[in-house]
Amino acid sequence: MELVLPLDLHRRIVEAAYRKRGFTAEEAGQAARFCELAAWHGIKTHNALKALHLDDHFGSGNRVKQGCVPGAKIEKLPSRFPAAQRWNAHRKLGQAVAFAAMDECVALAEKFGVGIVSVDEAFHYLWGGGYVMEAAKKGYIAYTNCTAALAEVVPFGGKFPTLGTNPHSWGFPTTAAVGFPIVIDWATSTVAMGRVQQFKRENKPLPPGAAVDKDGKETTDPNQVAALLPFGAHKGYGLSLINELVAGLIGGSLPTLRSRPELAEADEKTAPNFFFQVIHPEALSGGAFAKGRNQAQNVKAVIEDILGHGNAPPQGRTMLPGEIEHRAALASQKAGGLIFTEAEIAEFARIAGELGIGMDANSLKKV
Amino acid sequence: MELVLPLDLHRRIVEAAYRKRGFTAEEAGQAARFCELAAWHGIKTHNALKALHLDDHFGSGNRVKQGCVPGAKIEKLPSRFPAAQRWNAHRKLGQAVAFAAMDECVALAEKFGVGIVSVDEAFHYLWGGGYVMEAAKKGYIAYTNCTAALAEVVPFGGKFPTLGTNPHSWGFPTTAAVGFPIVIDWATSTVAMGRVQQFKRENKPLPPGAAVDKDGKETTDPNQVAALLPFGAHKGYGLSLINELVAGLIGGSLPTLRSRPELAEADEKTAPNFFFQVIHPEALSGGAFAKGRNQAQNVKAVIEDILGHGNAPPQGRTMLPGEIEHRAALASQKAGGLIFTEAEIAEFARIAGELGIGMDANSLKKV
Repeated sequence: MELVLPLDLHRRIVEAAYRKRGFTAEEAGQAARFCELAAWHGIKTHNALKALHLDDHFGSGNRVKQGCVPGAKIEKLPSRFPAAQRWNAHRKLGQAVAFAAMDECVALAEKFGVGIVSVDEAFHYLWGGGYVMEAAKKGYIAYTNCTAALAEVVPFGGKFPTLGTNPHSWGFPTTAAVGFPIVIDWATSTVAMGRVQQFKRENKPLPPGAAVDKDGKETTDPNQVAALLPFGAHKGYGLSLINELVAGLIGGSLPTLRSRPELAEADEKTAPNFFFQVIHPEALSGGAFAKGRNQAQNVKAVIEDILGHGNAPPQGRTMLPGEIEHRAALASQKAGGLIFTEAEIAEFARIAGELGIGMDANSLKKV
Repeated sequence: MELVLPLDLHRRIVEAAYRKRGFTAEEAGQAARFCELAAWHGIKTHNALKALHLDDHFGSGNRVKQGCVPGAKIEKLPSRFPAAQRWNAHRKLGQAVAFAAMDECVALAEKFGVGIVSVDEAFHYLWGGGYVMEAAKKGYIAYTNCTAALAEVVPFGGKFPTLGTNPHSWGFPTTAAVGFPIVIDWATSTVAMGRVQQFKRENKPLPPGAAVDKDGKETTDPNQVAALLPFGAHKGYGLSLINELVAGLIGGSLPTLRSRPELAEADEKTAPNFFFQVIHPEALSGGAFAKGRNQAQNVKAVIEDILGHGNAPPQGRTMLPGEIEHRAALASQKAGGLIFTEAEIAEFARIAGELGIGMDANSLKKV
């Protein structure tokens, strides 16, 4: 059984939680907007509970050095390149920075065909898929990568974790073609550390190629896990390395010190970095589509060919990336709110209680 | 034992082979330049022999419809977006188009910070890593993807091949940091079809997750292989899908008809597409590097952290993508020419003989 949290109540709780931590009304609004987007699309790993937990540990709650600074202002550095902006976020709330950066990329793409924004001194933006999905819904091709909070992943052939779970996220404007934006979004580790904890709780073995023990030997025993492995051997390693190289070019420092200010010297830097990019679909179009199609019809024909030939249900099991998130959104819409487990709702009720917000879990609609 | 083919002899053979097929002197020169680059860096899968073989089957040698048209001219379409160009290659030699497109991206990145070139009606450019490597050697961050010649890969969860081996290639300007450009370059299938043939010849099983039989069931028996699988399950599938979506937006048509004009109607399109992008590293730099480093020193420090902690030799086995190609280049330099196997040299000698070029395989230096 799951329960439906109304959007306005969810928003009030999340905004109040961020306001209590000292964030501005605008920051709290962006945090709530993002958590709603994640929960609406069924993203359990990056909902409000995860966001607040992360802020406690690495963000405004970190006592050595705040990884996230309430009220911080984005500094836009001068650039001699008109289609590329360079921002220093001064550790402002990641969600607020990411929404703003993607909006800026859209404006640049409208003008130049392509636009990029690089962000130094960032704080974890949670679910990269959300930002590219929003841009793709508006009709753009969007991409983002970031360096994840902690170095938990061993490079291919190594034994010590020196890479983040470094995700990549791509969004495509395919709503006209298939009814929703295709969103390709995942970490470059085989599994996340949270999944390892889940396997441990359930006393189940990990999938192969997911983790190593303290000697750098591959293990499927969740109790022996010292670090994660990249997916796809050298290929996932290469994809993870991209985020570190881009971050290094922007201004990020050593991955093993990231989000670990307690290990870093005073002149070190420990914040993650973001990279955003938007391309206008008309900037790609050669205009000469087969069989008199327009661009959207052509993309639809290509997708139908890929899913055809018995690949998609009912004959096959092929889905489009973003389809699960789209179905979750339809379920949220039908339910008239955000769908959470009983345990999650209990946690929201606890937070609401602390904030003096009335929330009666028993009165919530069940699904 | 391997043999060393002098650069000038290699160039004469390759240029003459392309000239004989009707390509212009400039096209033949670009073809030879590319094959030299590939062989210099030890890329066995995309050397001159492979290039000519490909041209026979899908290119100028295709009797139904030439996939590659000697002497074709690139048409640069008008664009309202100054940082984005759209080209119709009219099936001009892929290597010549790709070199030109990457040069144009560099010029755009110099002006705008980032530049993209999309190419419709293209012909296979062989090794994407070569183009990004060249740009990275000049100091730029480069990326390219393309739709591979044939749909040989089954989408995740499906059973019929509707995707190309669709590669991605990234190059980073890391020569100052590590002595060579980091080049991340691979197909999105677990293995290439050529490798399946090799396993068959050697009577060895395929690695798991590499291929399916005619019923879409995973197989490690090379004799049962009907199609390939993407690497990393849904993740590699997503990466492969990106190339098809970008191609679809540019003007490419159904993947299952690609390079198969014999199956296509008159108003269909069967050529691959290219996408190129270059970013100027200064367009990313936030300028606030830790410990007073400059950008190159910062990237070096990040890489040393990733390879450190016992990950790289002698304690570990972690390498950088592009390191193998760099070592091959050093070996070529030391040998004073291009290193080929005896079988490859025999093939070069056969081609040289047909072209009336004197080539004495017995006189070649051995390594």
